[in-house]
Amino acid sequence: MYASLKDVAAHAGVSFQTVSKVLKGAPVAVSDATRQRILAAAEELGYVPNAVARGLLGRSTYSIGIVADDLDDWALAQFVVGAEQEARGNGHAVIIGTALGEDGPGFVRKLLERRVDGILSAAPRMEKNAEIGVLLRGQVPAVSIHHVPGGGVPVVGSSHGGTGRMVANHLVELGRHNVAMVAGPAQRRVVTSRSRGFRAGLADRDVRLRADHVVEAAWTAEGGFGATLELLERDRTISAVFAHNDLIALGVLSALHQRGVRVPDDCAVVGCDDMPFAAYVTPSLTTVRIPMRETGRRAMTLLLDRIRGEQVHGSVLLPVELLVRGSTVGSAGESRGQP
Amino acid sequence: MYASLKDVAAHAGVSFQTVSKVLKGAPVAVSDATRQRILAAAEELGYVPNAVARGLLGRSTYSIGIVADDLDDWALAQFVVGAEQEARGNGHAVIIGTALGEDGPGFVRKLLERRVDGILSAAPRMEKNAEIGVLLRGQVPAVSIHHVPGGGVPVVGSSHGGTGRMVANHLVELGRHNVAMVAGPAQRRVVTSRSRGFRAGLADRDVRLRADHVVEAAWTAEGGFGATLELLERDRTISAVFAHNDLIALGVLSALHQRGVRVPDDCAVVGCDDMPFAAYVTPSLTTVRIPMRETGRRAMTLLLDRIRGEQVHGSVLLPVELLVRGSTVGSAGESRGQP
Repeated sequence: MYASLKDVAAHAGVSFQTVSKVLKGAPVAVSDATRQRILAAAEELGYVPNAVARGLLGRSTYSIGIVADDLDDWALAQFVVGAEQEARGNGHAVIIGTALGEDGPGFVRKLLERRVDGILSAAPRMEKNAEIGVLLRGQVPAVSIHHVPGGGVPVVGSSHGGTGRMVANHLVELGRHNVAMVAGPAQRRVVTSRSRGFRAGLADRDVRLRADHVVEAAWTAEGGFGATLELLERDRTISAVFAHNDLIALGVLSALHQRGVRVPDDCAVVGCDDMPFAAYVTPSLTTVRIPMRETGRRAMTLLLDRIRGEQVHGSVLLPVELLVRGSTVGSAGESRGQP
Repeated sequence: MYASLKDVAAHAGVSFQTVSKVLKGAPVAVSDATRQRILAAAEELGYVPNAVARGLLGRSTYSIGIVADDLDDWALAQFVVGAEQEARGNGHAVIIGTALGEDGPGFVRKLLERRVDGILSAAPRMEKNAEIGVLLRGQVPAVSIHHVPGGGVPVVGSSHGGTGRMVANHLVELGRHNVAMVAGPAQRRVVTSRSRGFRAGLADRDVRLRADHVVEAAWTAEGGFGATLELLERDRTISAVFAHNDLIALGVLSALHQRGVRVPDDCAVVGCDDMPFAAYVTPSLTTVRIPMRETGRRAMTLLLDRIRGEQVHGSVLLPVELLVRGSTVGSAGESRGQP
């Protein structure tokens, strides 16, 4: 289906060697007429150079694999966009795998068979998969946005503990002391880190997070909704809720509304991620913006550095930002959010 | 960086031919001891077969290119997940390009240089790019989820006109006659189709959509917010708004709330896409579910059929579904949405 140099040579009626040199821009003694005939034939047949052959001859395939398990998660999609743009800007193509379930290691092996120059791991669900750890420490450089069992892989991300602390400080400064938390799935590191940071931030201000004020939920609005009904059964007087992402926070707002708890008057709500809807729900959602697109760019830059043989040590933590909106400060954007 | 057959042979102290045959599973007379030594060496060096070489020798690289311009759009990410899963299930890897801006054709050329077996176009912003049309009709099979200038490329999607009609019927049945529409960017085909279908659906029931009741907006909540303030300035008595996607609809809800217009009592609101937040905003958002993941699967299946040389004609339209919630029918899900 692809036109080859041979096809072009035959079509132009010129020797393969000459055609090859002309189309590869190599020095060759050839008349303008012939050169034009070759270029015309190439255009007519739609000849394009073969990057696969280049990749096989050279030491690089100029391709990067991205293990992007939850691509339909908005934050992760942002990450992939940033990483892919950075890779393309450096002449690399990106091969992605999504919704891998149990097949993470299998996909990484496929990437290796395809001789990718490096691998970017954006699959937090695999953060405890030892086999992934072994593969990522294997023959090609790798960079991850999550913990890799056994380490040895540079990590780019933000301080989840710092995020929790930031939220705690904001709520305490607002005089909210009867706080609660709807955490993501407990086995996830981001969840334990955010929880620890939140607890520590509260403790610094002598505020205690009661054990029965913490409920775990899936990363969905439905999860946040059910968890909040549970919390209200345990204590109707909760004055603030920290939700581990904006979808959970949306479910929290919905449940509080259904139970007649006013936000922020009776109860303040803080989410995480600054998803596109956060500034426009009512009340607009106070949240922490995690720079996912920038994280993707930085992770890819780091990976390309490693591929070029540069030494990369430790991890990169990008700053996060608290966006104060109507769900914690009534005056702020009760009407319109500030994206 | 990758271990080669030569490396394995040297490491095992066995001839290249023997190693090659053993590791490729070709018939060869060799002692168990030697076989074990070869396998041990392969494992120690982390040898993996070279799919690039296979691709160069064979007629296929088992790779598919996806032009996924707006990957950070939730609906499009769903599409890519469905398409990638389908491709992987059939032994193909997916190379994606995102946020291409003006570089669409350049990216498609890169895909051709990489000898992809086929191309999936999911870049509505390029639906009027003639060069893309030429490239997609070029040397490899292509399938698109949007119009391709010049045609000749099978399209998989849903009936945008039907979506508009469905929304019109719902609103008229609710007795809403003073309707308005916040459309997406007017140059987009999905927008003109949805608008035409909406108008036609209203006309069938003798309801007219006034010219000054139509405002164009970006695909964002911010766009929907501004457009709605504009609509309310023109006519404060609008009783229903059809927003071309859920983010726009979210901005509509926010603006109506700010202006003290009650939803759905004073004004009903319908969105499109059923994004993850739609069922949990307050009131929960009536919307049309577009099966984007299924669209991705079907588009990839069709593309793989074409790659196998099967004839594919016309386009595939998948059914859409109206999800009635609190923003049009007060009783429905005012409390909790039905995802």
